Amino acid sequence: MAWRRTHNCGELGIENTGEEVVLNGWVDTRRDLGGVIFIDLRDRYGITQIVFNEVDKKLHEKAEQLRTEYVIGIKGVVDKRDDENVNPDLDTGDIEIIVKELEIYSKAETTPFEIKEDIETGEEIRLKYRYLDLRRPDIQQNMILRSDFYQTVRSYYHQHNFVEVETPVLMKSTPEGARDYLVPSRVNAGKFFALPQSPQTYKQLLMVSGFDRYFQIVKCFRDEDLRADRQPEFTQIDVEMSFVNEEDIMESTEQMMTKLMKETIGRDVAPPFERMTYKEAMKTYGTDKPDTRFGLEFADFSELVKDSEFNIFSNTVQEGGAVLGITVPGQGEMGRGAIDRLTERVKEETGAGGLIYIKLNEEDGVKCSVEKFLKEETVDAMVQKAEAEMGDLVLILAGPAPDVYTQMSKLRLMMGKEHNLIDEDAFNFLWVTDFPLVEWSREDQRYHALHHPFTSPKQEDLGKLDDDPTEVRSRAYDLVLNGYEIGGGSIRIHDRELQKRMFELLGIGAEEAQERFGFLLDAFKYGAPPHGGIALGVDRIIMILAGGNSLRDVIAFPKNQKAQSTMDNSPDYVDQEQLDELHIRLKRGVGPEEK
Amino acid sequence: MAWRRTHNCGELGIENTGEEVVLNGWVDTRRDLGGVIFIDLRDRYGITQIVFNEVDKKLHEKAEQLRTEYVIGIKGVVDKRDDENVNPDLDTGDIEIIVKELEIYSKAETTPFEIKEDIETGEEIRLKYRYLDLRRPDIQQNMILRSDFYQTVRSYYHQHNFVEVETPVLMKSTPEGARDYLVPSRVNAGKFFALPQSPQTYKQLLMVSGFDRYFQIVKCFRDEDLRADRQPEFTQIDVEMSFVNEEDIMESTEQMMTKLMKETIGRDVAPPFERMTYKEAMKTYGTDKPDTRFGLEFADFSELVKDSEFNIFSNTVQEGGAVLGITVPGQGEMGRGAIDRLTERVKEETGAGGLIYIKLNEEDGVKCSVEKFLKEETVDAMVQKAEAEMGDLVLILAGPAPDVYTQMSKLRLMMGKEHNLIDEDAFNFLWVTDFPLVEWSREDQRYHALHHPFTSPKQEDLGKLDDDPTEVRSRAYDLVLNGYEIGGGSIRIHDRELQKRMFELLGIGAEEAQERFGFLLDAFKYGAPPHGGIALGVDRIIMILAGGNSLRDVIAFPKNQKAQSTMDNSPDYVDQEQLDELHIRLKRGVGPEEK
Repeated sequence: MAWRRTHNCGELGIENTGEEVVLNGWVDTRRDLGGVIFIDLRDRYGITQIVFNEVDKKLHEKAEQLRTEYVIGIKGVVDKRDDENVNPDLDTGDIEIIVKELEIYSKAETTPFEIKEDIETGEEIRLKYRYLDLRRPDIQQNMILRSDFYQTVRSYYHQHNFVEVETPVLMKSTPEGARDYLVPSRVNAGKFFALPQSPQTYKQLLMVSGFDRYFQIVKCFRDEDLRADRQPEFTQIDVEMSFVNEEDIMESTEQMMTKLMKETIGRDVAPPFERMTYKEAMKTYGTDKPDTRFGLEFADFSELVKDSEFNIFSNTVQEGGAVLGITVPGQGEMGRGAIDRLTERVKEETGAGGLIYIKLNEEDGVKCSVEKFLKEETVDAMVQKAEAEMGDLVLILAGPAPDVYTQMSKLRLMMGKEHNLIDEDAFNFLWVTDFPLVEWSREDQRYHALHHPFTSPKQEDLGKLDDDPTEVRSRAYDLVLNGYEIGGGSIRIHDRELQKRMFELLGIGAEEAQERFGFLLDAFKYGAPPHGGIALGVDRIIMILAGGNSLRDVIAFPKNQKAQSTMDNSPDYVDQEQLDELHIRLKRGVGPEEK
Repeated sequence: MAWRRTHNCGELGIENTGEEVVLNGWVDTRRDLGGVIFIDLRDRYGITQIVFNEVDKKLHEKAEQLRTEYVIGIKGVVDKRDDENVNPDLDTGDIEIIVKELEIYSKAETTPFEIKEDIETGEEIRLKYRYLDLRRPDIQQNMILRSDFYQTVRSYYHQHNFVEVETPVLMKSTPEGARDYLVPSRVNAGKFFALPQSPQTYKQLLMVSGFDRYFQIVKCFRDEDLRADRQPEFTQIDVEMSFVNEEDIMESTEQMMTKLMKETIGRDVAPPFERMTYKEAMKTYGTDKPDTRFGLEFADFSELVKDSEFNIFSNTVQEGGAVLGITVPGQGEMGRGAIDRLTERVKEETGAGGLIYIKLNEEDGVKCSVEKFLKEETVDAMVQKAEAEMGDLVLILAGPAPDVYTQMSKLRLMMGKEHNLIDEDAFNFLWVTDFPLVEWSREDQRYHALHHPFTSPKQEDLGKLDDDPTEVRSRAYDLVLNGYEIGGGSIRIHDRELQKRMFELLGIGAEEAQERFGFLLDAFKYGAPPHGGIALGVDRIIMILAGGNSLRDVIAFPKNQKAQSTMDNSPDYVDQEQLDELHIRLKRGVGPEEK
């Protein structure tokens, strides 16, 4: 039987002196000072020092057995520490407990790594023993932050009349974009459910049902090829509203995020958030999720150099490419060796063919790496366009679009990080708007929806839908925080005919559309309100709030980069009997016998 | 573009008279009274009457197009209704809106059933058009109740320092009891994840990690053969606490439920809830989830009749069976025909071999259906034991245990309902405790855990674990509300050796235990606190709070009794390509070609 504690390990203070208390917790550290045993007793609330003196021999002997990570209960009396022993680093540092009784609930072997912050242990071993990793204060604090996060988000939406609705996890497979996880049905032989990539269609149906405002914090699933920062299951804040325009959703999202920043990490951010069109973001930062915590905006030299005698420039521009520059402040003195090394890295990490530069320093004046091919006035015009000043370094890439934008975007980030241009303490929110509705896929020889097929085109661009679809802007918006896309949404199509036209444009034939999305098209027959919404990535937002850089540090039991949980060894082979019941077999060459 | 509404359809009143307003909503009803068109405009907040008079011809013509379920926006002016037109049934019944502008967002075909409460439409058609069914006020109110329910539950646990942690949906398959849903892994060929039947092992690991108090409202999955009131995916409130005993968890659950009853449906319930041991529940009600809103407790006549000359009684008792009775008040006048019909129904619905009775009425005195085989004093003793009074009817079943208890339990419920003995307005909570740890399965020829293999035996019964395991009581408890099991939990095993012993007792060998639950056994090596918890069935609780009798009425998008969603036709066949990627094939004779 566990002793019912009177206090946790983080709350006793000088005002409790003399009280009889019961504490439970883990042995964090143990010191034996000439017969008196001091133990730091730990629970998730804090640490309290407990003391076994030699008055009670039997108790002292029992205490001698104690080792790190033993779980114990103690009864004792709160004692004020002597002034010289006060520990200002501990909330409970003014007191200690003189132990009268000890109960050992559980012994502990030596843990495979230390239970403390900032350990060097590799992630592989940490994930294998995740239950111990979760004992470490930094990971534990991330989880508590996450718990607070949930409550704040939900309280915002609940207060604003959003109805929380649980949508199904076992749903229809509608492959589009990422791959579905499938679930074979036992009672419907040969048929499969899919796990939701998002509850998109359900939340739209809820609008058709008149729920007006819906939210849910919900698990979603994507069976993607694994990249550094992806998890097969992830969590999103899912929101949908009826009778709204873009402004309403952005405003509500800003209010929610502002409350969230304040209540979880005590930060003030001021809505409205900055906004930028997709075009402007691409032109200025080469990405639709720019990190606006620092400058290094692109200067476009294409117009200046299109007739230059330097073929690399002029040919690039004439073939539809671009010549772009960024100005790195204070790096005008960079030496030849450093620039060469940078050039190599740029080639390797961005895929650019080469790096051109203009250095501005007192010694050399304005020095361009290809000055023998360029008129001096051209170089001067470039310097002016780049707003470079004495002491700065202008880095230039030339190449076909859109590649050169992506390359320059990477170079910009590289320079931002390397020269400490990023205000690590800042939280820069940015709305990116006016996305193209569709893009042409050379690979599939058809149009893809940039967001998803339910996104509404802009009314004023509807005329171009047939003849020039890539010029049609959508009513979509992404929310970017510090260079991470943390959310995206749109005003949806609520008109059956427009939705059908959209499916057609995406190469989804009438029959296929009915087969896959018939229920939504049917629903639009019976009175659908204008509606729109947003989905925000919970894992990523918490990662940023926690100041971390791995999603795995803010998920209690994450998968590794092979989509495996090494702790419980999943996924794993299953019995043939289980497969038989599900009416499936493994393909030849696959399975435990082939190990 | 949607008009930004100034108000919803449930909030305007006399104090708004003269204001210009914008409303959006659905056309609920439409009346054309000599040229003036009245429309009840509906949204989820209420109904407001809007009026199109003939002043503006064009507007009036547009309004003539309107039909039920059209979605519209209007701009107009709030007008006080004449006294004789005030509608006291509507919150907005004092006013109407004189419309100045009309926007039709969406037209509507005739819906397959009416959008109103208490329709006669069969469930099949309602589920097919669930998005319309969800428009009906009664279902919509259930969903709003559900949303409030979530917030109340979470606010309780959050206020009491529980950390909300999301546990994985893609986990290891550990078949035990119900069947797992499996999810084939694409990147780990031939291997499968399982969907959680409960996050049991994860929440125990969180206790080992020191989270101290955990909660989550979480989806769980069971691929069971379908019974009337089951869903393949269901939601539970999942709770775990460290350093606690049964009392702590029961107390915290009672506090939460009390808050919940008050805040969602305004009902006061008074903790502590009634308690009853498993043995007592079985003896008194023949079930471990008795509906205690009415009496009809069992009288056990076995001792009285064990030596009776009536063989059916004496043989039954001598063979270890029981003779049980219940006293139905005021039914002592039941006629022969009615009793014969009842007997037939009892045989059919409970499986009992026959029904014996004692009627007590003024005309016949005490009349037993088998009195020729029984001594008068025996009948009198039975009447006394059953506490039957003049005017009552004692119904008696005899048979082997435990079947006769189950049969009598069904008969008790039948009588309770039929004779209106159940207080439909009551909410009777009951803890059932002291469950057996294991039961012997004749079918499998091994012991089964009555709850699950992680349930702790009672300390004082540990001695019987080897020799008499079915006599060992566990530290489990179920929470019962009005005859429904709404939750269950236990103090868990936190000792590695005891857990191993438990696996052994359940016929899970050391190797298999390590294979399936090795991570938990390993975790117990490194300092595990005493811990326990509970899981509560969200769907069922809300069903009871909503006064309904189908889980499907409190789940937004439920599956039907074949585990299908007819709305979106899931589960469904998938492309061969998708199966190929997942390294699986359908078994021969299964699949779309074989249709």
